[in-house]
Amino acid sequence: MATNSIPANLKLGFLGAGQLARMSALQAFRFGIQVAVYSDRPENEPVQFMTPYSTSGSFSSVEDMVAFAKDCDFITLENEFISSAILKEVQEKSGTPIFPSPDSFALIENKLIEKQTFEDAGIPVTPYQLVRSEDDLKEFGEDYGWPYLLKSSKGGYDGYGNETVKDLKSAKQAFEKLGGNKERDIVAEAFVDFTNEIAVQVARNETGTVVYPCCETVQKDHICVAVLSPAPVDVHFREKAQELAVKATEAIDGKGIFAFEFFLTKEGKVLLNESAPRPHNSGHYTIEGTVASQFENHVRAVLGLPLGSPKMKAPAVAMINLLGTHRRPAQTEEILEGFEQEDGHLHVYGKVQSKVGRKMAHYTLLGQSLEETYKTAMHVTRNIEI
Amino acid sequence: MATNSIPANLKLGFLGAGQLARMSALQAFRFGIQVAVYSDRPENEPVQFMTPYSTSGSFSSVEDMVAFAKDCDFITLENEFISSAILKEVQEKSGTPIFPSPDSFALIENKLIEKQTFEDAGIPVTPYQLVRSEDDLKEFGEDYGWPYLLKSSKGGYDGYGNETVKDLKSAKQAFEKLGGNKERDIVAEAFVDFTNEIAVQVARNETGTVVYPCCETVQKDHICVAVLSPAPVDVHFREKAQELAVKATEAIDGKGIFAFEFFLTKEGKVLLNESAPRPHNSGHYTIEGTVASQFENHVRAVLGLPLGSPKMKAPAVAMINLLGTHRRPAQTEEILEGFEQEDGHLHVYGKVQSKVGRKMAHYTLLGQSLEETYKTAMHVTRNIEI
Repeated sequence: MATNSIPANLKLGFLGAGQLARMSALQAFRFGIQVAVYSDRPENEPVQFMTPYSTSGSFSSVEDMVAFAKDCDFITLENEFISSAILKEVQEKSGTPIFPSPDSFALIENKLIEKQTFEDAGIPVTPYQLVRSEDDLKEFGEDYGWPYLLKSSKGGYDGYGNETVKDLKSAKQAFEKLGGNKERDIVAEAFVDFTNEIAVQVARNETGTVVYPCCETVQKDHICVAVLSPAPVDVHFREKAQELAVKATEAIDGKGIFAFEFFLTKEGKVLLNESAPRPHNSGHYTIEGTVASQFENHVRAVLGLPLGSPKMKAPAVAMINLLGTHRRPAQTEEILEGFEQEDGHLHVYGKVQSKVGRKMAHYTLLGQSLEETYKTAMHVTRNIEI
Repeated sequence: MATNSIPANLKLGFLGAGQLARMSALQAFRFGIQVAVYSDRPENEPVQFMTPYSTSGSFSSVEDMVAFAKDCDFITLENEFISSAILKEVQEKSGTPIFPSPDSFALIENKLIEKQTFEDAGIPVTPYQLVRSEDDLKEFGEDYGWPYLLKSSKGGYDGYGNETVKDLKSAKQAFEKLGGNKERDIVAEAFVDFTNEIAVQVARNETGTVVYPCCETVQKDHICVAVLSPAPVDVHFREKAQELAVKATEAIDGKGIFAFEFFLTKEGKVLLNESAPRPHNSGHYTIEGTVASQFENHVRAVLGLPLGSPKMKAPAVAMINLLGTHRRPAQTEEILEGFEQEDGHLHVYGKVQSKVGRKMAHYTLLGQSLEETYKTAMHVTRNIEI
């Protein structure tokens, strides 16, 4: 049953205060909803400039998070840093619902369980194996070939927590580095020879499910530098990825916004690589690029409102991540060329401190042809320094 | 010279905390800019939920506003309640620039001076006269016919401060009610027999000027209930209004966002009726309806950024004002039909208290035909209660 009313003073609490919470908060405000934020960072984070209701605390302190949650009507996530067990405890003790639910998150929070969950649902994933010993490391290399990947089962993002290993020696070193000797689960993943990395966002709640167009993520050194939508791959592959993304959301009974990253292999297979129970960098383009953005549908999904349309507003959209170029107080410079594009949109996250490679801002350009739009977007942002 | 960089910690201060400041603040956030708000209301106003930097004080206290302004990098307006003399003093004593400038505002803050300013610039205005006595009231009626309008030269909006007078007796009563006996300037305005009320927003700064499509405002009891864009009148009239709006902005050397309301008369004349040095209800449709909204261009203009495109995103846009239907804590009810429209967008202002007729929310629908879009937008919002 869809929510048919929005009361005044409704408060949505975010566990996490980064750019994802920030952009969802902007959409919450549009519905007249108040925003509270719980951050584990000592420094000022962007969302703290956008609300009088901000709290600092640890992501392991149930007590602090319960106190925060009691003052909110709904709680939602913007990262995967809090364990499902803790989330469950916070939900039970505060009485405030958390979406995506701790039960949904429990099915994907650990890379090993995540892969099992999706495999059980009939979704093709990259070949993987829990590795516990030198023998396991050796055996995986022999079975699937070198190089392969070792991933910490928890806490990885943007390439952190991942290591490419080329032989047994490097595998042993990486295993140790990732905490494999400290009882942390380490998963070996076969190296997939892919032609494209593609991604799909899905919003789902009791009113229904909407799926965004499959886009391509362009990665450099394991960091997404650009997103192109729709992905410049055969429509058959896009449809396959969208179908699998919906299936994956259903497999965890997801309520919220979810993102799924896939490999499109040289053999034409679409393999699920990673999932996220939150807005995702691959969906930033939807702010201007679709009728209702991933952030709007994040808020709608959590509140039980009907979901908005993921239809594209232009034939082609390119999003460029603007990463920090200096270690200094943030300052977004040389922005004029980007502004000169009629349908070009700069978003600055309001982070106080810039660091080389830190996600500081992004630029979205709408156009007619993907190749031309991508080329122009890259060109007009090439001189931006942050 | 356009601004080519956005530093961190840039703070934009709003004098006023209503829905116009709120919607501009949402755009400031998109550029990573912080928002501070100075409000003259005792109760909680919407913007105060969106920033840790909110101050309460009087709009006549220079000292308090100077202290507020000193903590901001730019100051801007969302209403016409502060006199240009006070704004000038605040600007001088704080050293913080105010845009639109007190000098621009001085040319339009008083209805008499406003009309003279625009008349001097060659812009047709409705026939008017400063009235000081019973003889003046009588003479105006004889010259321009009864009924006519009496307007307080300061402080009017949404029909407040305006009186329609049908004869000398009612003119004398209205004159007294509006404060004419208390040395307040009262302006008589001829009743214009118009076919349409149309409006145009203009953004202007040192980088250039952009003009939005001329729209129609549909009024009921002097309150705007709907806006249709582009206005369903001959393109010649739309172009004329846009041309006059740019001329009017130039006449006051405006830096910021401005709105101009015109009468389209039965004889086919376009007469300037009112002006506002701020975002305007007639421009709310631009949030989804144009590439860059009036709120985005408000922020861009004040900061010296290049101005965004006012190009429409659909052939037809209808915006419905959702006025309070009850005196009660705000609750926006029966919203589902509005959500069912693919390109329909609900905005709730987050006001805590609803009052009958108070502007609480709005709904924008994009479509192909104006008639159909307006009809649908009215239909799907007909049951909303707030």
